[in-house]
Amino acid sequence: MRVGQFQDHPTLGFVDWTLRGVGQVVFQNNPLAGLVILLGLLVNSWIYAAICILGVVASTLTAIWLKADKGLIRDGLFGFNGALVALALVAFTSEDFQTGAIPSVAMTVYLVCAAAFTTMAFATIAALLGPHKVAPLTMPFVLVGWLFLFAVLKFNAIEAGPMAKPVSPDQFAYSAPYDFGTWYQGIGTSIGQIFFQDNWITGYIILVGIAINSRISAAMCLLGAVIGTFIAALFGGPEGAIRDGLFGYNAALTAIALGGFFLVFNWSSLLYAVFGAVVSAWLWASIAIFLKPIGMPVLTSTFVLVTWIMLIGQYAFKALVPVPPAEATTPEDNRRRYLAGLQTDSGAE
Amino acid sequence: MRVGQFQDHPTLGFVDWTLRGVGQVVFQNNPLAGLVILLGLLVNSWIYAAICILGVVASTLTAIWLKADKGLIRDGLFGFNGALVALALVAFTSEDFQTGAIPSVAMTVYLVCAAAFTTMAFATIAALLGPHKVAPLTMPFVLVGWLFLFAVLKFNAIEAGPMAKPVSPDQFAYSAPYDFGTWYQGIGTSIGQIFFQDNWITGYIILVGIAINSRISAAMCLLGAVIGTFIAALFGGPEGAIRDGLFGYNAALTAIALGGFFLVFNWSSLLYAVFGAVVSAWLWASIAIFLKPIGMPVLTSTFVLVTWIMLIGQYAFKALVPVPPAEATTPEDNRRRYLAGLQTDSGAE
Amino acid sequence: MRVGQFQDHPTLGFVDWTLRGVGQVVFQNNPLAGLVILLGLLVNSWIYAAICILGVVASTLTAIWLKADKGLIRDGLFGFNGALVALALVAFTSEDFQTGAIPSVAMTVYLVCAAAFTTMAFATIAALLGPHKVAPLTMPFVLVGWLFLFAVLKFNAIEAGPMAKPVSPDQFAYSAPYDFGTWYQGIGTSIGQIFFQDNWITGYIILVGIAINSRISAAMCLLGAVIGTFIAALFGGPEGAIRDGLFGYNAALTAIALGGFFLVFNWSSLLYAVFGAVVSAWLWASIAIFLKPIGMPVLTSTFVLVTWIMLIGQYAFKALVPVPPAEATTPEDNRRRYLAGLQTDSGAE
Repeated sequence: MRVGQFQDHPTLGFVDWTLRGVGQVVFQNNPLAGLVILLGLLVNSWIYAAICILGVVASTLTAIWLKADKGLIRDGLFGFNGALVALALVAFTSEDFQTGAIPSVAMTVYLVCAAAFTTMAFATIAALLGPHKVAPLTMPFVLVGWLFLFAVLKFNAIEAGPMAKPVSPDQFAYSAPYDFGTWYQGIGTSIGQIFFQDNWITGYIILVGIAINSRISAAMCLLGAVIGTFIAALFGGPEGAIRDGLFGYNAALTAIALGGFFLVFNWSSLLYAVFGAVVSAWLWASIAIFLKPIGMPVLTSTFVLVTWIMLIGQYAFKALVPVPPAEATTPEDNRRRYLAGLQTDSGAE
Repeated sequence: MRVGQFQDHPTLGFVDWTLRGVGQVVFQNNPLAGLVILLGLLVNSWIYAAICILGVVASTLTAIWLKADKGLIRDGLFGFNGALVALALVAFTSEDFQTGAIPSVAMTVYLVCAAAFTTMAFATIAALLGPHKVAPLTMPFVLVGWLFLFAVLKFNAIEAGPMAKPVSPDQFAYSAPYDFGTWYQGIGTSIGQIFFQDNWITGYIILVGIAINSRISAAMCLLGAVIGTFIAALFGGPEGAIRDGLFGYNAALTAIALGGFFLVFNWSSLLYAVFGAVVSAWLWASIAIFLKPIGMPVLTSTFVLVTWIMLIGQYAFKALVPVPPAEATTPEDNRRRYLAGLQTDSGAE
Repeated sequence: MRVGQFQDHPTLGFVDWTLRGVGQVVFQNNPLAGLVILLGLLVNSWIYAAICILGVVASTLTAIWLKADKGLIRDGLFGFNGALVALALVAFTSEDFQTGAIPSVAMTVYLVCAAAFTTMAFATIAALLGPHKVAPLTMPFVLVGWLFLFAVLKFNAIEAGPMAKPVSPDQFAYSAPYDFGTWYQGIGTSIGQIFFQDNWITGYIILVGIAINSRISAAMCLLGAVIGTFIAALFGGPEGAIRDGLFGYNAALTAIALGGFFLVFNWSSLLYAVFGAVVSAWLWASIAIFLKPIGMPVLTSTFVLVTWIMLIGQYAFKALVPVPPAEATTPEDNRRRYLAGLQTDSGAE
């Protein structure tokens, strides 16, 4: 199937953009990848799958209303932060984090507005980072997610459950020993947690979705999750947090971003991505403790912070080959174009 | 009376700039508007009126000493953050929030330095936002206000009262029912709270001051205060906080900024401003809870955050017509100039 | 001895860069200054001296691996944040703050990675501030220091002691009277605390190191420490915190930065630097209280914040003569070059 064949279709186009929006959470501009990821969510809970679609649609429609750039809309770039913020609002206000609860009317209005607000936040962060050729990543989601999560707990009309999910390593027992389940579940759930899915099977299905579009991205995602899980264990993190994938989801995203997507894939960028994943695993704990007095979850703030710190200054480091966000497609394509450019240059000499 | 007739006067000029500084808190570059607002403060407490003048004078003199741009000084742009920081320091260290207390000598030195520091913060934030054609708004005040408020509580020489004013929705009872007073007092006090005036009559006098210079701005200010108050009630916010205008003052400022001042006034920008006011009302609660562990008031941080998020990325949205800060005068003028520009363009065809 | 004679040496070059890295903490691009400062640390504790070297080497080697600009590496600019982060991690995890403890293997890996991460943070902050011609100062250290300090407390494999050092003025008694020791020890320790050295003799040795390279910088450093100490006393700060140099170390750094280093030294910039030092002393208390709920130390965040606020907007103030970071050498040189430029200009008339 040729990717993009529905992108221009008058009626199916919007479906295509929505599925790409789901895929863009893990940097995959591919509707089929988005569809498989959505199936992964469905395996865990139909509520989350529906909320994910609602979020993408709300933020994408806002972009259309405001007459944003069509290319960005069609690539799903106005959708993925909306998806995440909608998922987060449901996940952290449901009594059962794993399956989620159907939101009330007031809550639905509220989360649609939050998703719409990510569209404005995306444009603003993109404008601020424009001169540095670095993408907003999931920062619109993190920012809007924090802001809207706080407020929700203070309005009577929104019946928010207790925050059922522990948000900090402190809230897990340190005594439990690591076993085989810690590893295969921790690694899978790390990938699932990117979409707030506390389900390791969903995590491995998401990995398949990524692999449809890019083998390198899938490999980096798995490597990041493995690094996050093992680094946490090596340094003695609590078993429950490791098994729940909390040390791994930021590391997985950092590894995808630095491992071929925003930097041409080679030995230097691989090492750079591994270092980034290690730091992301450590700093998840750090930001969790920082946010604990206000009871706020980390979301993907660690990934954004580490990746920005490692990318904004990249032009100072000649050992790295940057890929500007507007040109980033897949690690495979980025590398092919770079090598082709080198050949042209040497051929011209 | 022609606006600006005293702006160039050798001795009365400074008075004119000071009054404009007061007006600029609510985007009104008009000495008469400033004078009426000052009278509104005087109705509530002569102490606050005096402190407001002291703050404007301190920050404006600092700008003159540092040889800042004369045009900005004469338009009161170096004054309004000084006014707010001086008011905040007195309001939050007085035993009676409503009338304020005469500051001690140590406190006076301290608040004059804080006001002077806003001049530097204004220049810095203006420089940072320059490429995005977005104004510093009241961020210099928020930043310097937070920094100086914290420290004041730790010095013996400054006798700070207890923070008499609740700073978070948590601190109000949820059980009180809404009545007629909730509405007309809540809306008026929302406008008063922009200047830390816990007095609904002062609020409506400020509204008159705004209307002298711009009817659209006055209408947007009222609309913002109404939206803030009703959204809070609709979502079940605590009655005391609504009556005290706490949900409304950020919404009112956001509505003025987006409703014709920094965006040409039309149906799109009106809807955009309404959305911004709704979000500001929700997020006041959010930032209040975020700041609660350290006991810090929200000030106008919600207004600044929401307005920046909705303006910095504006050039990505073709549905909006931006007005760069240097050209923003009043919504009426901005619209007139834009329509005249359109006519010229079509006339040239 | 001609400064720079070893900077190009094939094997001794790296030693030269490392010593400059130590000197750059206090803006001294001079290996001899770095050496004297290192001796100052050694007088207090050989552990800290060794850790300081380890930090500079780790972050400088990272810059070399990533092929960063050679000029910056050779001037020690990739080293000083690494030194500080390594010192901070040891200082705040040792049972005895004053002498420090030898770090475990896990901790050593961890702090080397933290130092390496400052190199990326330095490049990123430099890129963000580039258009404003303002230096990253010690922000890479503050940011990475906070992030890595938090996480360290949550990993079993790193045996962190209790945070022995009080981090907020709240934790000191207010009743103790000021005596002669408060002054001479408080001023000396203020300078020592820049390097986490709770030792007033070390502070005065560091001052000698600075004076080797620049008398004006040494004078400003001392002036800043004196201002910090006296302002705290004048406003009734707790004696223990004053004697420990906590009110003074940010003030000392601010005074060096504004007093001739990033602004040409004259009466205006001297007054500006004095104002900055006063504000830094006040705001140390402020940020300490802000960070207290999460138990995090202030580090040099106050210095960075105040100096950035006073420098980023400097081009708006014609009373100040900016020195872009790339041209800043010593206050003496900066002034000489500026006066020479004036003469050339008037000669050309």
